[in-house]
Amino acid sequence: MELDPAQTALVVVDMQHGFCHPDGSLYAPDSEAATEPCAELVDRARQAGAKVVFTRDVHPPDQFEDTHYYDEFDRWGEHVVEDSWEAELVEDLDPKDEDLVVVKHTYDAFYQTELEGWLDAHGVKDLAICGTLANVCVLHTASSAGLRDFRPILVEDAVGYIEQDHREYALEHADWLFGEVTDRDEITFA
Amino acid sequence: MELDPAQTALVVVDMQHGFCHPDGSLYAPDSEAATEPCAELVDRARQAGAKVVFTRDVHPPDQFEDTHYYDEFDRWGEHVVEDSWEAELVEDLDPKDEDLVVVKHTYDAFYQTELEGWLDAHGVKDLAICGTLANVCVLHTASSAGLRDFRPILVEDAVGYIEQDHREYALEHADWLFGEVTDRDEITFA
Amino acid sequence: MELDPAQTALVVVDMQHGFCHPDGSLYAPDSEAATEPCAELVDRARQAGAKVVFTRDVHPPDQFEDTHYYDEFDRWGEHVVEDSWEAELVEDLDPKDEDLVVVKHTYDAFYQTELEGWLDAHGVKDLAICGTLANVCVLHTASSAGLRDFRPILVEDAVGYIEQDHREYALEHADWLFGEVTDRDEITFA
Amino acid sequence: MELDPAQTALVVVDMQHGFCHPDGSLYAPDSEAATEPCAELVDRARQAGAKVVFTRDVHPPDQFEDTHYYDEFDRWGEHVVEDSWEAELVEDLDPKDEDLVVVKHTYDAFYQTELEGWLDAHGVKDLAICGTLANVCVLHTASSAGLRDFRPILVEDAVGYIEQDHREYALEHADWLFGEVTDRDEITFA
Repeated sequence: MELDPAQTALVVVDMQHGFCHPDGSLYAPDSEAATEPCAELVDRARQAGAKVVFTRDVHPPDQFEDTHYYDEFDRWGEHVVEDSWEAELVEDLDPKDEDLVVVKHTYDAFYQTELEGWLDAHGVKDLAICGTLANVCVLHTASSAGLRDFRPILVEDAVGYIEQDHREYALEHADWLFGEVTDRDEITFA
Repeated sequence: MELDPAQTALVVVDMQHGFCHPDGSLYAPDSEAATEPCAELVDRARQAGAKVVFTRDVHPPDQFEDTHYYDEFDRWGEHVVEDSWEAELVEDLDPKDEDLVVVKHTYDAFYQTELEGWLDAHGVKDLAICGTLANVCVLHTASSAGLRDFRPILVEDAVGYIEQDHREYALEHADWLFGEVTDRDEITFA
Repeated sequence: MELDPAQTALVVVDMQHGFCHPDGSLYAPDSEAATEPCAELVDRARQAGAKVVFTRDVHPPDQFEDTHYYDEFDRWGEHVVEDSWEAELVEDLDPKDEDLVVVKHTYDAFYQTELEGWLDAHGVKDLAICGTLANVCVLHTASSAGLRDFRPILVEDAVGYIEQDHREYALEHADWLFGEVTDRDEITFA
Repeated sequence: MELDPAQTALVVVDMQHGFCHPDGSLYAPDSEAATEPCAELVDRARQAGAKVVFTRDVHPPDQFEDTHYYDEFDRWGEHVVEDSWEAELVEDLDPKDEDLVVVKHTYDAFYQTELEGWLDAHGVKDLAICGTLANVCVLHTASSAGLRDFRPILVEDAVGYIEQDHREYALEHADWLFGEVTDRDEITFA
């Protein structure tokens, strides 16, 4: 699968301590295992001149106090709180000045963020998506990308997950309804 | 589960000929089977004074000509084309003047529609969701509702599906991440 | 100014009893005076095969009860309440089945409505805008259209207003920042 | 006018070299003159514990190549190009880590940006708005804030403009339709 760097962004979803580091409150070993594959994709995207986007899931301590129903702390416990170590990206993924770092407050990196506007203003149409969790923030972001008429390509050997069957469903669902699935070997930025 | 009619809407997703009638191009028997359960919920919601919303999936013939990637005709074949018999609601579900009928062009009834604005302007906060397909438009709409801070409650014995395991995943996914699942017997509008 | 009917919609803003009829609570004679010019444009757009969109400003009686600050009843008094005679379109402007009627709850016909999605799904890119009030709902809608990359063309002899200088500013502002201004004689749908 | 720091943000619009420095391509002396008043408000907001938001207008060199109609370079000439000196904030306004810096690509700081999501997640409801240009980005941002149910308060002696009557209209328009106008002396963050 050849991706044109002039209209492609690599989107690295939520590779933060809270999810990927053994001390993180929502740590999953298979999220940590996605770090090196994501880093390798970042290197290749940069060398080819494609855009690189990192998303960070961040919850201000009081975010859910005013909400009617949506309360991630209630479902998951407190996690990736604003300004905490948990909310930082893992060390091996180091954004450069020209990358976009999207701070998101829900599962969906498009919901009330600058992502769509930035992609449009930079002429990006195709998205290679990696990161974690496959069936939560990766899936919700990919789904939202599809409806907004981006081409979302999930990189199956660069996504993290809690259980293997979560990953299977996310990939099948995305492939069936709005996107594509491939692996790192298949992707060429050129 | 008691729902306050003053802040609740029943949302009936895509119960149209194209999905629910044997002559529909995307007919599934279990979508048709959801008709009577949906109609029964509509009756009870109306009697209690809750709002009723019907969504209709509608594709103008040329909708996907200008798109970069999102093309439902490519994935599903032509279906529920604007002004066709396929795009009409099934006979047993007959909107009244005071109901909202949302015409949607993607899987998500919130995406670029009047749904959120209408719910907000009418003080609706809780959504009982039924209709079809469980893991496509029902799931995408429920997910979008959750992120927008509505309380999405999927009515498991009033949703249609192609395969049983599609339904299972949709219900589990919604229950785990952003909503709740119940059945008709459990719901009281009062 | 030649407008291609295949990618043009005429947008008629808020020509309702509440604004255009002497018994309306926010009646302005120059809003009423816009009725015939709007009707004439509607005829010509229809004959040429361009799309026609009517917006209706509608406020549910309780709309502003839950809001923090935005309260149009506080600023304008109660007006165009849902299901009232005030909220109906004036008799001379009679939507046909193929037209879009947008119910809006704020000054901006794009905010939380189906307008953008409908225009996109129908391949519309250029908007001839008429209706009332020039410097309120016409201006806010035109401005929102511009930012969304539609071409908003204000038809200066088919807009209503309370005071003449309101109209002047609205036209100048739109022309300077995001759109164009013309009059009926200049427009050809072909 | 007392503003509760716990639910207030000061929003400083587009105080960048391109608009406020004599070498900027869209320089206006009265934009430059707003620098000190904005800086003074920033100091007071910080001391009181209110949030501080800076917006930056930024145009990638190719932003308008794919657009149908919206082309700011065509209207204004090339300005505040991404990564240029023009696009930087003026020296006297120096964001701190806890501030939000919003990169916007249109006149409206809410359009396709993270601003609404960030304000909501942080419990902000009231906005004191200053910066430049009064009748362009300040006005569009304030208008968008109002429709989204924030309380937009324009600080009249801390806004920049090209011509005095531009400022007058912007303030009148905002005050009449969706917000309030005050001056620095009147504002207390407490």
